Amino acid sequence: MSSARPRVAVDALGGDNAPGEVVLGALAAAADGVDVTLFGPAGLDTHGLPLVETTEVIEMADKPADAVRAKPDSSLVAAVRSVADGSTDAVVSAGNTGAMLAAGLLHLRRLPGVMRPAIAVPIPAREGPSVLLDAGANADARAEHLLQFAHMGSIFCQELLDIPNPEVRLLSIGEEDEKGNALVLDAHALLRGSDLNFGGNVESRELLRGAADVIVADGFTGNIALKLLEGAIKDLLDALRAEIASTATGKLGGLLIRPAAKRLRTRFDPDTYGGAYLLGLRGLAVIAHGNSGRRAVANAIKLAARGVEHGVVERLDERLGQRVRV
Amino acid sequence: MSSARPRVAVDALGGDNAPGEVVLGALAAAADGVDVTLFGPAGLDTHGLPLVETTEVIEMADKPADAVRAKPDSSLVAAVRSVADGSTDAVVSAGNTGAMLAAGLLHLRRLPGVMRPAIAVPIPAREGPSVLLDAGANADARAEHLLQFAHMGSIFCQELLDIPNPEVRLLSIGEEDEKGNALVLDAHALLRGSDLNFGGNVESRELLRGAADVIVADGFTGNIALKLLEGAIKDLLDALRAEIASTATGKLGGLLIRPAAKRLRTRFDPDTYGGAYLLGLRGLAVIAHGNSGRRAVANAIKLAARGVEHGVVERLDERLGQRVRV
Repeated sequence: MSSARPRVAVDALGGDNAPGEVVLGALAAAADGVDVTLFGPAGLDTHGLPLVETTEVIEMADKPADAVRAKPDSSLVAAVRSVADGSTDAVVSAGNTGAMLAAGLLHLRRLPGVMRPAIAVPIPAREGPSVLLDAGANADARAEHLLQFAHMGSIFCQELLDIPNPEVRLLSIGEEDEKGNALVLDAHALLRGSDLNFGGNVESRELLRGAADVIVADGFTGNIALKLLEGAIKDLLDALRAEIASTATGKLGGLLIRPAAKRLRTRFDPDTYGGAYLLGLRGLAVIAHGNSGRRAVANAIKLAARGVEHGVVERLDERLGQRVRV
Repeated sequence: MSSARPRVAVDALGGDNAPGEVVLGALAAAADGVDVTLFGPAGLDTHGLPLVETTEVIEMADKPADAVRAKPDSSLVAAVRSVADGSTDAVVSAGNTGAMLAAGLLHLRRLPGVMRPAIAVPIPAREGPSVLLDAGANADARAEHLLQFAHMGSIFCQELLDIPNPEVRLLSIGEEDEKGNALVLDAHALLRGSDLNFGGNVESRELLRGAADVIVADGFTGNIALKLLEGAIKDLLDALRAEIASTATGKLGGLLIRPAAKRLRTRFDPDTYGGAYLLGLRGLAVIAHGNSGRRAVANAIKLAARGVEHGVVERLDERLGQRVRV
């Protein structure tokens, strides 16, 4: 690494709560030792953080590939380019996921041998996090892509989570080898024949229990699973609160269990991790939730910094070269 | 209908808790006015319910299509055949879903014009149930299958749930028309061009909120979503209980909110519905959860009886003939 402190480029205009919460999250991460640079419009109040001025904005509704080409001086694209030209070590945005992927493919490019980058998301399971990938970078995938996602997830767990021999499982509609759609059946055979620690298929009902270190899925299925988890967690806790508030006894009980409910909410809160890694590029990119508040932004920036410190991209490059190139 | 009371054939050997809980569930449904016949081995204690003696058993691990052909006198296949020969009006099993589907295809056969039967499951959403289909009958599907699932789900809502103009949405990874995998993009175009009340794509995070009357997905995606919801609901409530039990104050609060938590559990309990309809066959089949207890079995039998009373199969036959045959 070129600097002692990880240098992270932050898209100040990304996400529903930009720029206010993004700047506050960046400040919090900077206070924790990350060398943060904001990318955004002239005159933005950065509370003293360095600003690279940009003139364009990518909106959530923009077509990703078009927008990335049409708006080279957008805060998102400029932040990605700062990683490509070596002036920062990693980039974080809570903006348009597709645009981040498109900008990454265009300006960072894929690591040698990588067919498709994948979004790797930590799932807050009971027995510690599982890493789910692909959580939405590729809506359609082939079996060999899923095999490569498994390799990337496995290396990620080894290097960043210190799990020596991570178990990989394939998300399917039954644990039996012959359960699944055509894609899963093909991917199952490839995984079974690989040198990965493959534990077979896993059903979605096991996801919150910590079914495996790495859960592999195509990006469509992974994204459906991830958003369903997030929605279910929120809706159930909200429904419980409404039920509790419907009686006086319940209300008193609700006060008494508030600390427990809060611990639960924190445990399953996607903001605890703050972001997802986009793996497979020649540079580190972290995608934060569109509705990130300052805490989620700060955690996403720290996630990026940790990835830099652990040399995730370098390790993926070395190890994918040995394991996956064909 | 040939009889005043719906006649329901019940596979006494289907499911993890068979035959004990199945027989008790059947008794409860019979007490509620359903004409129940059990299918199972000679000597089974049916508590006075009529028994059709069968000599074979289909196991959960059996290959469905093979088992259905190899074991024509299994409780499951015999129960399905009783619908085909008109001695009962509907069949319920908590056993092997694939075997139920295979037996249905072999002995009941598809309604004219139906390409693939689909499993339709009520999801306990906040604003009343949504019907999700296909929840797992077909792991792979084509766009025209999804269009037909939408028609079946829509007719189902009109006839059984008295919703005059049910809204149909397509499960995808974004609400925008252009979000999805290749299958979803194709299905979206077909749905948009149909006479259905199509509300566009829906994200999985909306499922528990009651996003639409009918949610359409291929059987792989639908099954992933359904099992994830079930797992998340159970795991979150269990986790909350554990958090509450970890402090004395929490324990007291837990006692006070117990009625609220119980209401919540009931509301989101899959057993409240008890089963899923297998739609598209020339006879009514209800698949109960493998781990059904007596309450779930009773509810599944009553679900089957309601389907008979509403003439679900006849209505599907009439309306699919007008709407879907091409």
